[in-house]
Amino acid sequence: MKRLALALPLLVSAVALADEGMWTFNGFPADKTKAKYGFSPNQEWLDHVRLSSVRLARGCSASLVSADGLVLTNHHCSRHCIDQLSTKDKDFVKNGFFAKTQPEEQKCPDMEVNILVEITDVTKRVQAATKTTPIEKFNDVQKAELATIEKECSGGDELVRCEVVNLYRGGRFDLYKHKRYQEVKLVFAPEEGIAFFGGDPDNFMFPRYDLDLSFLRIYGKDGAPAKFDHFLKWSATNAKDGDLAFVSGHPGGTSRLLTQAQLEYDRDVRWPVALARLSEWRGFLNEFAKKSPEADRTSKDDRFGVENALKAYKGRHAALADPAFFKSRVDAEKQFRDKVAKNGKLKKEFGGAWDGIAGAMDKLRGYRKELELERGPQSDLFSYARTLVRWADESGKPNGERLTEFTEARLPQLKQGLTAKKPIYDEYETARLGFSLDKMREELGPDHPVIKKVYGQKSPAAIAAELVKGSKLKDPALRQTLFEGGKEKIDANKDPMLEFVRAFDAEARAIRKKVEDEVEGATKKHGELLAKAYFAVYGQNTYPDATFTLRLSYGQVKGWKDGAKDVPATTTIAGAFDRHTGAEPFALPKSWLDAKGKLAGETPFNMVTTNDIIGGNSGSPVVSKDGEVIGLIFDGNLASLGGNYGFDEAQNRAVAVHSAAIVEALDKVYGAKRIVDELKGGAAGAKAGSP
Amino acid sequence: MKRLALALPLLVSAVALADEGMWTFNGFPADKTKAKYGFSPNQEWLDHVRLSSVRLARGCSASLVSADGLVLTNHHCSRHCIDQLSTKDKDFVKNGFFAKTQPEEQKCPDMEVNILVEITDVTKRVQAATKTTPIEKFNDVQKAELATIEKECSGGDELVRCEVVNLYRGGRFDLYKHKRYQEVKLVFAPEEGIAFFGGDPDNFMFPRYDLDLSFLRIYGKDGAPAKFDHFLKWSATNAKDGDLAFVSGHPGGTSRLLTQAQLEYDRDVRWPVALARLSEWRGFLNEFAKKSPEADRTSKDDRFGVENALKAYKGRHAALADPAFFKSRVDAEKQFRDKVAKNGKLKKEFGGAWDGIAGAMDKLRGYRKELELERGPQSDLFSYARTLVRWADESGKPNGERLTEFTEARLPQLKQGLTAKKPIYDEYETARLGFSLDKMREELGPDHPVIKKVYGQKSPAAIAAELVKGSKLKDPALRQTLFEGGKEKIDANKDPMLEFVRAFDAEARAIRKKVEDEVEGATKKHGELLAKAYFAVYGQNTYPDATFTLRLSYGQVKGWKDGAKDVPATTTIAGAFDRHTGAEPFALPKSWLDAKGKLAGETPFNMVTTNDIIGGNSGSPVVSKDGEVIGLIFDGNLASLGGNYGFDEAQNRAVAVHSAAIVEALDKVYGAKRIVDELKGGAAGAKAGSP
Repeated sequence: MKRLALALPLLVSAVALADEGMWTFNGFPADKTKAKYGFSPNQEWLDHVRLSSVRLARGCSASLVSADGLVLTNHHCSRHCIDQLSTKDKDFVKNGFFAKTQPEEQKCPDMEVNILVEITDVTKRVQAATKTTPIEKFNDVQKAELATIEKECSGGDELVRCEVVNLYRGGRFDLYKHKRYQEVKLVFAPEEGIAFFGGDPDNFMFPRYDLDLSFLRIYGKDGAPAKFDHFLKWSATNAKDGDLAFVSGHPGGTSRLLTQAQLEYDRDVRWPVALARLSEWRGFLNEFAKKSPEADRTSKDDRFGVENALKAYKGRHAALADPAFFKSRVDAEKQFRDKVAKNGKLKKEFGGAWDGIAGAMDKLRGYRKELELERGPQSDLFSYARTLVRWADESGKPNGERLTEFTEARLPQLKQGLTAKKPIYDEYETARLGFSLDKMREELGPDHPVIKKVYGQKSPAAIAAELVKGSKLKDPALRQTLFEGGKEKIDANKDPMLEFVRAFDAEARAIRKKVEDEVEGATKKHGELLAKAYFAVYGQNTYPDATFTLRLSYGQVKGWKDGAKDVPATTTIAGAFDRHTGAEPFALPKSWLDAKGKLAGETPFNMVTTNDIIGGNSGSPVVSKDGEVIGLIFDGNLASLGGNYGFDEAQNRAVAVHSAAIVEALDKVYGAKRIVDELKGGAAGAKAGSP
Repeated sequence: MKRLALALPLLVSAVALADEGMWTFNGFPADKTKAKYGFSPNQEWLDHVRLSSVRLARGCSASLVSADGLVLTNHHCSRHCIDQLSTKDKDFVKNGFFAKTQPEEQKCPDMEVNILVEITDVTKRVQAATKTTPIEKFNDVQKAELATIEKECSGGDELVRCEVVNLYRGGRFDLYKHKRYQEVKLVFAPEEGIAFFGGDPDNFMFPRYDLDLSFLRIYGKDGAPAKFDHFLKWSATNAKDGDLAFVSGHPGGTSRLLTQAQLEYDRDVRWPVALARLSEWRGFLNEFAKKSPEADRTSKDDRFGVENALKAYKGRHAALADPAFFKSRVDAEKQFRDKVAKNGKLKKEFGGAWDGIAGAMDKLRGYRKELELERGPQSDLFSYARTLVRWADESGKPNGERLTEFTEARLPQLKQGLTAKKPIYDEYETARLGFSLDKMREELGPDHPVIKKVYGQKSPAAIAAELVKGSKLKDPALRQTLFEGGKEKIDANKDPMLEFVRAFDAEARAIRKKVEDEVEGATKKHGELLAKAYFAVYGQNTYPDATFTLRLSYGQVKGWKDGAKDVPATTTIAGAFDRHTGAEPFALPKSWLDAKGKLAGETPFNMVTTNDIIGGNSGSPVVSKDGEVIGLIFDGNLASLGGNYGFDEAQNRAVAVHSAAIVEALDKVYGAKRIVDELKGGAAGAKAGSP
C-alpha cells in the first residue's frame, strides 16, 4: 500500500499531472487532456456524452446505446432486478435471461434511472441561507433551503428529479436537474457464472474474465420504448494499449478532502466496526445458504453485496492503515493549516474549522452505538414499516422540514421502492431479521431501555419469527394503500411490524436528530469554511469529492507493474477457458463450454485503464475520443480501493469489459443477434452496421 | 475509553500509586500494600500462596483448596474437559457434572497443571549468550540457550517443567521451575446456564450473576489423589466493600511496554484483521449450530471461545482507537526517547532500538498474509497431522535447534494434547475445516503457488470432506503409535491428512523461520536494548508485562463510577432471579429455579475488585490478607479489556464469584456436601469446619 502515498501531493497542489480526478461536466479540464493526449473534448462532445449517460438511482451507472432506450450496464447493477424476477423454478441469476423479442422484456420492479439535463450554480443562494445560522441549526436550515430549491426546479413534475449537490465539502452547490424514468425492463443478462467468473476471490483483481453486463430498456409512460436523440455508438475498432479513454459515470463518494480527525475516525472506528459487522454477516449468510438450494438462491443477492462491500472496505481500511500514506495526509493537512495560520485574515475566518470537525468526530464516537436504533435491523419488512410509520408524520410537514428521504425530489423513488412487487422469502427474512436483532442487542446492551422495552423476555429469534409470520406488509398492494392513505390509514393499522417500528421510533429519530445537528451540521459548517480556505490558498483548479452525480474521468488503456510483475492491459477470451477449473467460482457456464469452438480466443475480454473511478462507477461506459463505447467499467483493481482516500496513477486501475468481448459473446454464445444489431445499428430492429 | 488515558503516567514514572501491576512473586512490592492497606505479606505468606496457586497449562489459573488435591477454577477453564467427557446422550456442559463420590471423578483427557516451586535469575547467562550475535541469528541463538537451561533444570524429569521467562521485554530472564501433573479429574461443574448466565451479552459486564466455577482434583501416578502441604483455606467471613484482596494467578500477556510502532501495528493491522476473521467465524458457527442439537453441542466450545476472544479483542482495539489514550502512549515514548537522546552514552547504545522495532513491524506487515501457511486451518485433525509430520523431523534434532513447542520442557504437554482421547465429530470437523480452507485461499489468493498446488481444481469444501472422511488420525491410539514410532513410522504413513500437511510444510516452515529471524529476533534484540535503557532512565521499581507465569496483584473490593452511575461492588443471589427471563442466555437452570426457596437471596453472588488482571487470570483465587479464599476471578469489566495496554484504577475491575455464593450453591442447589465439607475442613472426607 505504500504506493498510495504518491497520490497525496496531487491533492494538495491541485495540479493533476496524472490521470486523476472525477471531474464535473461543467468543470472538465479540457486543457489537461489536450496537453497529455492531444485531444480536447468540446462542448458538443461533452453534452452528447452527458446526455447519453444514465444513473441507476439505486447506486450504479449506465449508458444509452440506442435511440430506442437500450441501456448498457453491469450484471451486478441490475442483479437485484434479475433476482426479483426469478422464482424457485426460474432462476435468471443462475441461468441468465434473454428476451428474444422486445415484448418479452420484463419490467424491473424497483428501478429508477436518471439522465442529467442541466446544471445550475446555486452556491450563493445556499450559502446565504446559512450565513448567520448558529451551528446547531445549520443542518436544518441548509436542508430546508435545498428542499426549496429542488422543489422550485422540478415544479412538482415527477418526471423531473432535481437535487442540489454539495461539492468541495460545501465550497460549491450546483443544482442538478435530471429526467426521471421508472419504467425499465430487463432485456438481457448472462449467467452469473460468467458475469462474476472467479467470484469473490477474483473480485477487485486483474487479470479478469468477466462478462459483467446486462441490457435494460427505458420505456415511456405509453408502454413503448422511449426515444432518445443522444446515445453512444458502438466502436467499430477495438480499443488497444495506450488509447485515450473517458469514463462517464456516477462515482458514489470519495473522501479525499477529509481532515485528519475524520481519517482517524474512519481508520479507527468506521472501518474496523464495519469489517467486523459485515464479516459476521457474511459468515452467517454463507452457512445459511447451505441449508437448501432455495436458501442459497434467496440469500444470494445479499451475499454478493456483503462480500463486495467487505472487500471494498478492507481496501479502504488498508489505505489508512498504511503508515506512509496516512503520514502523507497528516503532512498535507499540516501544510494547509500552516498556510492558513500564517495569514491573519484566513486564520481568523477559517482557523477553527479543523478543531470544529474534530469535535464533531468526538461526538460521533460517543453516539455510534446509540445510532444502532436509527440504523435498525436488516429486513425488508422492517424498512417498509419504518417508511410507512414515518410517512404518516412526514407527509404532514412542509417539504423543507421533512427527513431528507421524504422530500419531494426523492419521493417518487421512495414510493417505487416501497410498493415494488418484490418477493419476500419468509425463511430468509426471519433468519436475517433474527440475526440483526441479535446484533442490535449486542451493540446497545441488554440493559438499554429500548432493548428492555422492545425485546422484553423474548429472544431475538423469537421476535423475528413472530414479526415475519404476523406481518401483512409482504403484500405490495397493502403497502401502496397505506402509503396513499397517509397518516390516518397508517396510524389505524396495527400490523405487528408497524407496531415494532413504533415501539422505538421516537428514540431512533432522537439520535438521528442529534447526529444531524451536532455531527453533520458541524461538519458541513466547518467543511464550508475549509473549502473557502482551500480555494483561497490553492485556487479552484481541482475536482470535488465524488457525490453520486455525473462525472467524467480521463485516462488510457494501460497495464501496471505489480511489484516485480508486469500486468498487461487486456485479457482474452481464451484466458477464461484457461482459468476454468469446473469448481465454483471458477466454473464457466455450459453455454460457454458449448460455444468454445465458435469463439475467437484472441478476442480481448477485460481491460484496465488509468481512469480515476470508484464504487458507483459500475456500469459506466468507457468512451473513445470519438464518443463511442469501447468498454464497460465493472470493477477496479485492489489498489483502486484506496482511491477513496487518494489516487495513484502508477497503481490504480479501472477494470472494464472490452467492447469486442460483448459483441462476440452476444453473437456466438447467446445468439442475441437482435441486441448486436441494435448496438451496431443504433436502433431497435436495425441491421448491424446500418446507419 | 478516555479514562484509559489516565493509566499511562504510571507506566512512565514506574511509581504505582494505584493498585496497578501484575507483580512477580520474587519482586512483590510489599511496601506498597503496607503504605496503602497497612498489610505487608511476608515471605512465608508469599510462599504459601505461591505453592497453593495452580496453572492450567492450556491457559488458565486455579488454586489448591484442600490437602487432597482439590482444585478450584472456572467453569470456562475446564469446559474443554467437560465438553470432551460429554456425549450426545450425556451433555455435561448443558446439565452439569457432579461426582457424588471420589471414585466417580472422571479423568480430563487433555489437562496439565503446574505449580511453581522455584524461581532463579538467569539473566546474565541468557544475555551473555547473545552478546555478539548478529541480529538475524539472535532468535536462534537465544532459543537454543533457553532450551539448554530448561533441560538442565528438569534433568529430563517429566514431572518437572522448567521454563525461562522473558521479563521486561528482555531486561530480565528468570527460570521458573514447576511441578507438572497430568492426571487431573473433573469433580464438579454446574450447568452452563448458571456458569455463563447472561452469555455473550453479559460477558465482560457487571453487575453479573455467574457461578463460573468447577472443581478438579489432582491425582498422583499411583491413581490416588495427590497430597499437598500447601492449599488455601476457605474464608469463614464474607469479603465486603473495601476489603484488601490479592489475586494470585497467571495473566496471559499484556502489551504495556510496546513501542509506538508496535501499538500502531496492533491498532491498524492485528486487531482489525482479527476482528474481521473472528466475526466471520462467529457468524458461521452460530448458523451452523442451528442445524441440529448435535451440531449445536459439538460446536459450542468453539463458539464460546470465539465470542469471548472477539469481545476481548474489541476492547483492546477500542483502547488503541481512543485518541487520548493513544496520544498518551506516544507522548510517553517521546519523553523516554528524549531522555535517551540527551545522554550520549545511552543514545549510542540504545538510541536505534525504536527504529529497529519499527523496521521489524514493517516486515511483519509484509509477511502477514504468507503467515497464513504457518497458521494453517482450524482443525484438530490438521493439528495432529502437523504435529506428527514435524515431530518426524524435530525429534532427530538437538533440543536447542527444535521448534520451541518440541523442546523437551514442552514435550509432555504436546504429547498429552496429541494423544488425548478427545472426540472428533465429522460433521463439525468437516465444516470448520472447509470454512478455514476457504479463508486460507482468500488470504493467499487463488493464484498463490501453494493454493494452486494443494487445492488444484477442488473447492475448499470438497477438500475438507475428503480429508475428514479419509483420515485415520481420529484414532488416538494411532496417533500415539506414530508419535512413539518417530520418523520412520510417520514418514511411512500416507494418511491423507498427513499428506496434506506435507504438501506445504516446507513453505509454512519457511515463512515461520523468516518471521522468527527477521521480526521476532529483531524485536527481542531491540527490546532488550529498550529494557536496559528503561532501567537506566527510570530504574527497576516496576513490574514486567504479563507472560502466563505466576503473578500477584493487590487491590480491594470496590465498585466504580460508570459515567454518572455508581456500580456497587457486589450482586446478590436474589439479583440473578430478577435477571432471569426464561429465554437464553438469560434463563436460569431448572436446579436453580427449584432451589429458589431454599437459597438466601441476600448472599453475595459476584463482586468486583480493583486488582490488575487480564486473560489467563481466569480461575485465580481472590485471597484475603489471611491467605484465605474470598472469591474466584472469572472476568474483568469492559474497561479492563484495555488493560492490555494500560491500567486505570478508576475504571478497570476484576470480576469474581464471591466465596459465599459458592458454598451456598454447592450446598442448597447441588447438594454437594462432600465438596463443601472438603473446602471447610481442608481435606477429602472432612466434616465442614473440622480443622
